[in-house]
Amino acid sequence: MEKMKLTLLYSDLKSDIDIIEKELETALNSSSHLINDASLHLLQAGGKRIRPVFVLMSAKFGQYNIDQIKNIAVPLELIHMASLVHDDVIDDSDLRRGRHTVKAQWNNRVAMYTGDFIFARALEYVTSIDNVKVHQILAKTMVEICNGEVIQIEDKFRNNQNLKDYFRRIKRKTALLIESSCELGAVVGGLDVKNVRRLKRFGYFVGMSYQIVDDILDFTATDKELGKPAGSDLLQGNITLPILLLKDHPTILRFVEKASKGSVSESDRMEMLKVVRNSDAIKKAIALSNQYLRKALKEVDALPNHPMKKKLRDVALFIGKRKF
Amino acid sequence: MEKMKLTLLYSDLKSDIDIIEKELETALNSSSHLINDASLHLLQAGGKRIRPVFVLMSAKFGQYNIDQIKNIAVPLELIHMASLVHDDVIDDSDLRRGRHTVKAQWNNRVAMYTGDFIFARALEYVTSIDNVKVHQILAKTMVEICNGEVIQIEDKFRNNQNLKDYFRRIKRKTALLIESSCELGAVVGGLDVKNVRRLKRFGYFVGMSYQIVDDILDFTATDKELGKPAGSDLLQGNITLPILLLKDHPTILRFVEKASKGSVSESDRMEMLKVVRNSDAIKKAIALSNQYLRKALKEVDALPNHPMKKKLRDVALFIGKRKF
Repeated sequence: MEKMKLTLLYSDLKSDIDIIEKELETALNSSSHLINDASLHLLQAGGKRIRPVFVLMSAKFGQYNIDQIKNIAVPLELIHMASLVHDDVIDDSDLRRGRHTVKAQWNNRVAMYTGDFIFARALEYVTSIDNVKVHQILAKTMVEICNGEVIQIEDKFRNNQNLKDYFRRIKRKTALLIESSCELGAVVGGLDVKNVRRLKRFGYFVGMSYQIVDDILDFTATDKELGKPAGSDLLQGNITLPILLLKDHPTILRFVEKASKGSVSESDRMEMLKVVRNSDAIKKAIALSNQYLRKALKEVDALPNHPMKKKLRDVALFIGKRKF
Repeated sequence: MEKMKLTLLYSDLKSDIDIIEKELETALNSSSHLINDASLHLLQAGGKRIRPVFVLMSAKFGQYNIDQIKNIAVPLELIHMASLVHDDVIDDSDLRRGRHTVKAQWNNRVAMYTGDFIFARALEYVTSIDNVKVHQILAKTMVEICNGEVIQIEDKFRNNQNLKDYFRRIKRKTALLIESSCELGAVVGGLDVKNVRRLKRFGYFVGMSYQIVDDILDFTATDKELGKPAGSDLLQGNITLPILLLKDHPTILRFVEKASKGSVSESDRMEMLKVVRNSDAIKKAIALSNQYLRKALKEVDALPNHPMKKKLRDVALFIGKRKF
């Protein structure tokens, strides 16, 4: 359902997104049956393809050539996919979007080299681009994403963390890759420095808002909507915004303590969800997400007139306001 | 001992290699204690630093500037280190050079993200280089190394493989990164196309010879020299050149069968080692390694006159003829 609505928003780009979807299939083809199976599994799980869409939309403001721009849109989605596969190892996650993760369906080892393979394929695509700036932006982003992996591990179950720690984490986990998608679309589209910077900042703000909403939904959506048990983030030790906004609550403290020992019962989970859902932390978190969203929309306003401006706004509002 | 002799060969480059060693230490510094511990563990395990040495030697034929060239020498060694960490997960190796591997000392998960972190750091170094060709060569090499990971998994315990499969595997496992070290040293040193190609080919041939010798030593050296049990490759299902040269031997067939089920006894291992060591497969494998070595030396001959020519020859001969 969510995907359907987004597809409507993307309608102008439909045929180009189909091209990218086909390229992703090709990119994930390897000589190994095992990797093909794992990759097919990932492709079938789908996804909103938000990163490629932002690449295309940003490039539309300049010289748009799908045969060129796909070489940056495809690797950005591949990097995203690879990082999810490795993240599931780090978080020990068995489910994602209602499907078994690669590490659950096979094991950590298969997840490791499937992720490596996809990362490498991403790099391969980028080699066709003859602009050193593109390589530099992408490499820096990859470094920060890996740093993010590390920070996420360090911060697990850590009680003495603050909002700054959280924002630092979601920046690396989500915002940077969306920022780079917009920036690289703009760079490859040949936009001037000012507008590249605007789109880059737009991507960053949208990315922050996007991840905050994701972290809220992990508590407020149903297990079915999430495709995994609600509250999974906290179960895995990831202290997200709603928790930081009420972290001194005794039920939450007790829950984190139990989760760190892996001794959470189903009724513990229900109790924790009830506390979070009935608190004002959710409302406060939504307000913070909206702040980022407003900043994103301000960047759009500053862009030159173009039919894409409305689309950028619509997509930003959609992913910043989504209900699951 | 081996390292000491090599250090003598490198004597002209000693101070520059020290700079690179220091840079490696800096590069492996992260905000995570766990990653720092794992990285320190890797640094202390040492290594011959052959890839940086080949970068420096190749660059010496052109404009040599250590502050510039280190930005390609360091990432090449980092890529090598990262791939070892992930390889140990794939091969389920507990020992390397007499020390516990990261995956043995910690676990597969830690090995995965330590490797990711080191890969990312490598990319970060490369961003400082303002030459798109360098990025393209490196990305292609990384893709092929990851493909190699996959091929190595597919070929494990596979009986119906031939010499071509083996050479394809060691090309990706070893030769390509040494080839790229020489090529990138030459490119960054500003050599002309012809000499870049010569050094590239030199690196490829040396790399092939190097890996063949490594695969021979896995059977002929002692456990102590290897820092792990002799015959480990075959135990892990990696069918290397000596085995391919006598693969229809009943003892070997039986051993591979048992190894694939994980039911090899110590006396099985001893028996297998005896068969390999007393066969003419070792001699034939050495002859093949020497063929590559000769091709490598021919490339050196074609290079312009330079004091480094003798050094290149010496290092190639050293690593192609080493006894353990």
